[in-house]
Amino acid sequence: MTSPDAKTDGKTAADLIITGCTALVHDDHEQIDFVEDATIVVRDGLIEAVTTEPMDLAALPDLPAAEHIDARGQIAMPGLVNCHTHAPMVALRGVAEDLPVEEWFNDVIWPIESNLTEKDVELGARLACAEMIRGGVTCFADHYFSMDTVAAVVAECGMRANLGEAYFSSQGAEGRERSLDFALRQRGGADGRITTSLAPHAPYTVDDADLAKAAQLAREHGLLVHTHAAENRDQTDTSLARHGRTPIEILQGAGLLDVDLLIAHGTGIVERDLPVLARATGRIGVASAPRGYLKFAWPTTTPVRALRELGIPVGLGTDGAASNSSLDVWDAMALTALVQKSTEGDPRWLTSRQALHHATLQSTRAVGLGQEIGSLAPGRKADIILVDLTGPHTQPVHDLPATLVHSARSSDVRTTIVDGRVLMRDRELLTLDVPGIVGELEERMPSLLDRSHGRKIQDYDT
Amino acid sequence: MTSPDAKTDGKTAADLIITGCTALVHDDHEQIDFVEDATIVVRDGLIEAVTTEPMDLAALPDLPAAEHIDARGQIAMPGLVNCHTHAPMVALRGVAEDLPVEEWFNDVIWPIESNLTEKDVELGARLACAEMIRGGVTCFADHYFSMDTVAAVVAECGMRANLGEAYFSSQGAEGRERSLDFALRQRGGADGRITTSLAPHAPYTVDDADLAKAAQLAREHGLLVHTHAAENRDQTDTSLARHGRTPIEILQGAGLLDVDLLIAHGTGIVERDLPVLARATGRIGVASAPRGYLKFAWPTTTPVRALRELGIPVGLGTDGAASNSSLDVWDAMALTALVQKSTEGDPRWLTSRQALHHATLQSTRAVGLGQEIGSLAPGRKADIILVDLTGPHTQPVHDLPATLVHSARSSDVRTTIVDGRVLMRDRELLTLDVPGIVGELEERMPSLLDRSHGRKIQDYDT
Repeated sequence: MTSPDAKTDGKTAADLIITGCTALVHDDHEQIDFVEDATIVVRDGLIEAVTTEPMDLAALPDLPAAEHIDARGQIAMPGLVNCHTHAPMVALRGVAEDLPVEEWFNDVIWPIESNLTEKDVELGARLACAEMIRGGVTCFADHYFSMDTVAAVVAECGMRANLGEAYFSSQGAEGRERSLDFALRQRGGADGRITTSLAPHAPYTVDDADLAKAAQLAREHGLLVHTHAAENRDQTDTSLARHGRTPIEILQGAGLLDVDLLIAHGTGIVERDLPVLARATGRIGVASAPRGYLKFAWPTTTPVRALRELGIPVGLGTDGAASNSSLDVWDAMALTALVQKSTEGDPRWLTSRQALHHATLQSTRAVGLGQEIGSLAPGRKADIILVDLTGPHTQPVHDLPATLVHSARSSDVRTTIVDGRVLMRDRELLTLDVPGIVGELEERMPSLLDRSHGRKIQDYDT
Repeated sequence: MTSPDAKTDGKTAADLIITGCTALVHDDHEQIDFVEDATIVVRDGLIEAVTTEPMDLAALPDLPAAEHIDARGQIAMPGLVNCHTHAPMVALRGVAEDLPVEEWFNDVIWPIESNLTEKDVELGARLACAEMIRGGVTCFADHYFSMDTVAAVVAECGMRANLGEAYFSSQGAEGRERSLDFALRQRGGADGRITTSLAPHAPYTVDDADLAKAAQLAREHGLLVHTHAAENRDQTDTSLARHGRTPIEILQGAGLLDVDLLIAHGTGIVERDLPVLARATGRIGVASAPRGYLKFAWPTTTPVRALRELGIPVGLGTDGAASNSSLDVWDAMALTALVQKSTEGDPRWLTSRQALHHATLQSTRAVGLGQEIGSLAPGRKADIILVDLTGPHTQPVHDLPATLVHSARSSDVRTTIVDGRVLMRDRELLTLDVPGIVGELEERMPSLLDRSHGRKIQDYDT
């Protein structure tokens, strides 16, 4: 991402200098802290410094080659991470409303997905990336089909992503092999912005032997496994009735708790799962997407407090837009705080600082990038967003974390930067053309939405 | 609001023509419907027509004097109504976070409110109106102090409002008299945009005799009464323990269910209250502000389904920003749908069309303006918002009500119109200067926030 004329006087030029912002940082105990009137120096896509030292830009010979953003009045934060989504499903936003999850899957989504073409995935992924960049999301963990296409979109649009090709046991060995092939082939792609996962769909669609095979492959190849598990309480109850084990116990039996594992949702994690999770030797993370749980009227949400006591990071996600209606991680952050307070009956729990910790380091750990991103600290990748708090809805600021979590909205993100490259400047997308994408997507709709064939890709029968 | 040169050829000019929009209307059964490629004609602040007839603007002699908005690609909707707020409290946004309600009142808010000056109220109300206009709110029901000041801000900024001067029994007869004087003096103000209420604070701060007096005055003067009641379950339990009656039964005993009554919150409305409410002879409405209930970790929310069965309209509100963090009614609409689904355990309940009905006719009925606003229909006042759905987060549109409720955000409102007058055009506020207001408010903060005096305006002891 170094600009072509970035070398001056034999020194490597900084890619980017952001001045005058208030920077959200983590202190030595990982508490959220703020540095006022900060300058952020980015070189070769990495954060070199977050400093309050006055800098005389003109006096530094290597700086004229860099891009300079005057961010006075703005907050610089680590870019948000969407820890669990199916990006291309934005194409299906609104096709299955006000339904229980089994009808949502069996009557609408899985029949429609039997029509999916690579073009649909490509256009959906582009639209999703546009939505996410506009909402301050710099990285997403995606679990879907035709993922080579999604990888190409990631390369094109400049985002960071962890990508996994989903598979079911109903596909035989081929699904798993394709998932592994994808993961090995694409990791490190897009100038290192792409990491990959093995992506078995869920314990209710992938059998025990295949889950064990996934664990073995993950260990062999050092891959993260990204799967849905204990999505809701019904799944846990059904699993107990059919197999005498919870979905978490099934993962454990397959060896998946002894590799790096990203569990989507986990609202069906129950008391007896906690000691099982406590014995995990892999790095386990959970992605929580609370809007969809409310919309599906699930009786519980992700047990964030219990997971915290186990030291398991809970990252923020949106799931696909076909259930969640949006890929708004900012909204997931606020809703997580609200729903957690309500669920625990404790207004002091999940403070705004805690919510910001989930949105930063816990999210990056959940997707296996805990050392690379998630904090504005020297050596981390320069995934940075600038948030404007001058709007009437965010003034006055008596409590900056609360303003960010409960008053600001994703639309207050003005600038989105990944690897030091500006992907949105003053709310203008620089790498994606939304009207063009929407126009092409419209044309795809009749064949994508057709359910007259009676096929579906899978049965929801947990 | 007729423009000065509005008369041409002896005909009254239309104030405003909006063309090319999709208009949200109500059908004969009050179901939400949409008229595509609609033209909305506004004359003298009233909606004259919502039509799909092609109009040759140049050929109509009276039209050149009118303002013309080309709204292709936008949705025209009735302006949102904030059915319960304390607008000036935006000045206190974030001062009391992550606290139970009793500490929030006793330790922070009521001590700070003993410092309130008219200037604080004025600046807070201005900032609140700026936030609301930007969020597509055209009318708000306010319950606070120094309400003449709020009325002056409403006159200045062009919004519509129902205003009530709050009082406690601890103020003696003087509080009630001031509230009545305000209500009688200000009603019909700001060219008819101001209506008024009597505003006894709540059954736990206003005694039975004073509540009965409020009912009597309301009947005598034809005034709405706006009060907090059964705000949470604790209040109901405490009321039962102390008085053997629920807050709703206390209102009933005082005669307040036989006048027009706006009840804020009602999350503590219990089973035994339902027959009491069913026997009400006044027009009762309830304002629900779900974000704050989650934030305070209250165990229940407004019982929307039970109230619907009684025919009691439930309007949307935000409460004050000191608890709710924002005055975002769009967010209240989405959260109402989500929380209702979750609370009832029924994903089919509170559909997006129902949510839009709450946001329109139920809200306007709750604030006593059911005949004046709330629908884009001839003869109604021209309180209209234009919403842009071209952003990536609202595309594609498979289900327009769902897109509006669950994907769109208040920041998608581009234009806000009250009484036919444009208050925000393309997100630019035309009647309020936010940086100026914020700058003045900053200066007020040290004296407003001072709690060293040990005073407070009231005790929270339900």
